[in-house]
Amino acid sequence: VTSKGKASGAAVRSVPGGRVEPGRRYAIVMAGGSGTRFWPWSREDVPKQLLALVSSRSMLAETVARLRGIVPRENIFVVTGRRHRRRVAAELPGLASSQVLAEPVGRNTAAAIGWASLEIRRSCPDAVTAVLSADHRIDGAEAYRRDLETAFAVADRSRGLVTFGIRPEFPATGYGYILAAAGSRATAPAQRVAAFVEKPDLATARRYVAGGRHYWNSGMFVWRADVILDEMRVHVPELANALSSMDRARVRGRIPGAVLAGRYPRLPSISIDYAVLEKSDRVSMLAASFGWSDIGSWDSVAGLWPSDASGNSTRDPLLAVDAAGNVVATRGKPVVLLGVDDLVVVDAGDVLLVCPRARCQDVRSVPGLLAEAGLGELR
Amino acid sequence: VTSKGKASGAAVRSVPGGRVEPGRRYAIVMAGGSGTRFWPWSREDVPKQLLALVSSRSMLAETVARLRGIVPRENIFVVTGRRHRRRVAAELPGLASSQVLAEPVGRNTAAAIGWASLEIRRSCPDAVTAVLSADHRIDGAEAYRRDLETAFAVADRSRGLVTFGIRPEFPATGYGYILAAAGSRATAPAQRVAAFVEKPDLATARRYVAGGRHYWNSGMFVWRADVILDEMRVHVPELANALSSMDRARVRGRIPGAVLAGRYPRLPSISIDYAVLEKSDRVSMLAASFGWSDIGSWDSVAGLWPSDASGNSTRDPLLAVDAAGNVVATRGKPVVLLGVDDLVVVDAGDVLLVCPRARCQDVRSVPGLLAEAGLGELR
Repeated sequence: VTSKGKASGAAVRSVPGGRVEPGRRYAIVMAGGSGTRFWPWSREDVPKQLLALVSSRSMLAETVARLRGIVPRENIFVVTGRRHRRRVAAELPGLASSQVLAEPVGRNTAAAIGWASLEIRRSCPDAVTAVLSADHRIDGAEAYRRDLETAFAVADRSRGLVTFGIRPEFPATGYGYILAAAGSRATAPAQRVAAFVEKPDLATARRYVAGGRHYWNSGMFVWRADVILDEMRVHVPELANALSSMDRARVRGRIPGAVLAGRYPRLPSISIDYAVLEKSDRVSMLAASFGWSDIGSWDSVAGLWPSDASGNSTRDPLLAVDAAGNVVATRGKPVVLLGVDDLVVVDAGDVLLVCPRARCQDVRSVPGLLAEAGLGELR
Repeated sequence: VTSKGKASGAAVRSVPGGRVEPGRRYAIVMAGGSGTRFWPWSREDVPKQLLALVSSRSMLAETVARLRGIVPRENIFVVTGRRHRRRVAAELPGLASSQVLAEPVGRNTAAAIGWASLEIRRSCPDAVTAVLSADHRIDGAEAYRRDLETAFAVADRSRGLVTFGIRPEFPATGYGYILAAAGSRATAPAQRVAAFVEKPDLATARRYVAGGRHYWNSGMFVWRADVILDEMRVHVPELANALSSMDRARVRGRIPGAVLAGRYPRLPSISIDYAVLEKSDRVSMLAASFGWSDIGSWDSVAGLWPSDASGNSTRDPLLAVDAAGNVVATRGKPVVLLGVDDLVVVDAGDVLLVCPRARCQDVRSVPGLLAEAGLGELR
C-alpha cells in the first residue's frame, strides 16, 4: 500500500519564524512490532523492522537515518521489546544504550510513548517530539524533512497534538482514516480533525476517497513531551499515574530494570489513538507531502521492488516463463518460475514459503503452526 | 509413472536346466542421458542418473547394486558421456576404469550398445548381455533377479533378442508399447512380438490397456553379444562396419582415445529399437513380474515419495496449510506451503524452481533459457 504524494506538492505550508531549534527536537521510534506476516524473514527474534524490505538497510536503520539533519542523533529514543534490545542496538551503533528503551513486555503504544516522553522531558523540559514507526516506508526525503520541521513548529506553537494525514491514493481497507474538519483548510498548515475512523469496508473507503476530506492515519505524530503527558493525565489517568510512579523510582537517572519488570506489565494496554487522540480536543492534522505506506505483508512489497514486464516483483535473479504477478524474495538466490501467477515465493535460507498473494494475510498464522510440523525452531 | 507387477505374480516362468553360468552374464548400463526435465537438480554436468531420486543413492548406483548376485561386478559395463566419466566412476568405486566407456559425443543407443558389445565379446565370446537403463525405477528386487535369470537363459538358448514388456497399469501416453503376438502366451516364458508401437494418444492407449496384448516397452533387453552384433551387421551394416573398424584399431586391448574422438562422432545416430528390434525376426518379449517405471519428470516422483493426507509428496520437512497435491524436493530444507495446490517446488541449493505439476514437461526448456536471464552458469 503506497501513497506517492510528491507530485501533489507541499500540502504542508512552511511556518516562517516558527522553527523549533534542533536541540529541542526529539524523536520516539516505535520498534516493538513482531511482524509475523513477514515470516519466514521475520522471526520471533527478528521482527519486521529489522528486515531490509525497502532498501539494503533495515527499516529501523532507515527510519533513524531519515532523521539526519532534523533530529539530533542523541535526541532519538527507540522503544522495543527486551528480547529485541540487543539486535536493535546493533542496528543503531550511533545511539547510546540509554536511548534504547526495552519494554519487559509490550503494553501497546500509549505506555511506550508515555515512558519515552518521561525520558525526553527529563532530558529537555520543553522538548518537541516526533513519534515515528520503525516499519513505515517513506518516499521523498526532502518533503519528509520539510513536513517534520513544520510539524515541530506547529506542535510547539499550538501546544497541540499534530497527526500526519496521508492523501489516499486508493480506497484502502487496511488503514484507519482521519476526517478533516470542513472549512479549516485554507487558514493554517494544520487542519482541525473532525474524527478518527476505524478501518472501513471497501464501499465506505471509496466514499472517503471520493469525498476528499478523509486521510489515511499514518500513525506519525508530533507534540511537546509535556503536552502529551498532560493529555495522558486527563484522558488515561491510571496510565499517567503508574508512569509517574515508575518515574519517581529512578536511580541515578534511570528506572531500574527490577522496577520496570515489576511495574511495566501492569500498565494498561491501550493504543495512543484510543487513549488520547480520539478524546482530546487539541488534535490537528497535517496533510503530508511525502509518500507513505505501511508495509503490511509480502503482497505489499510488490509495489516497492523492481518489476519485470509481466509484473513479477523481485530484487533477486529471476527467470519467469509464462509467469506473471509473482513476488519473489530469496535474498539473492536465483529463481525460475514456470507457468505460475500471483504467487509469493520467499526463501529465508533455512526455510521456504510459497503462497498465493491473495493469502498473504494468513502468513501470520504460520509461526503458530510450525511446532506441530516439528518445525518449532523456525518460529 | 509406475507399474507394480508384484501382485500379478511371476509372469515370466522359470526355465529349469537353462541357467546361464554367472561368468557368462554381462550387463551394459546405459548412462548417457542428460535429464533436463529434472532441472535444477540435474545439470549439464549432473545428469538424472546421478541423482538420488528414488533412494538416498543415485539411480546409477542403484542400478549397479541391483545386479548383485545376478551379474558379476567385473562384467558390468557403463556407457556414459565423456563429460560425465569422472562423476560416473566416482559413483561406482567397485568398477575398474576399463568398465566405464566414455563416448566423446552421444550417438544414440545402437552405437553405445554396439561398442559395449564389442568390449564384452572380446572379454567372453559367448557372453549373454543385459542392456539396462541407469534411470529406471525397479520395484521388487527378487522378481527382478528371477526375471533376469530367465531372460539370460532364454536369450542364450534361443539366440534371440529378448525384450522386457511391462503390463500397463494405466493408459500411459509417454511410453512406447510392444504388441505381443496372439496365441503365443501359453507355450513358453517368452512371447513372440507382433509389433513395436510408438507412444500413443490417450484414446489409443486406452484401447491398448483394454485389449490386454500391449505391454509397455521398458527399454530393457537381454541377448548374446555375438547375436546383437550379427543382427547389427544385417540391419545397420554402416554402423556395424564402422564399429568393426574402430575395434581393429585397438592398442593393448583398448580403443585409443584419439581413435574414439575421430571416429565415434561419425557413427550413425540411431536407436537400437529402430536400428534392429523393429526389423529383426528374432525378437521375443518377457512379461516382467517386477515393478517398473521410467521416472520422466518431477511430476512422476509423486508416486515414489511419501505423501501426506492431502497428497503432498516429499522427503523433506513440510508444513502444508490448505495445500494439496504438491511435490516438494528441497534436499532437507523445510518448506511451508499455504493455499497452493498441484505445484512442484524444487530447491537445488543455488537455485529454486516453482511450476505447476501439469507444466513439468516444460522444465526441459529451462536450461536453454537461463543464459538470457544471466543465469547461464546454472545450466
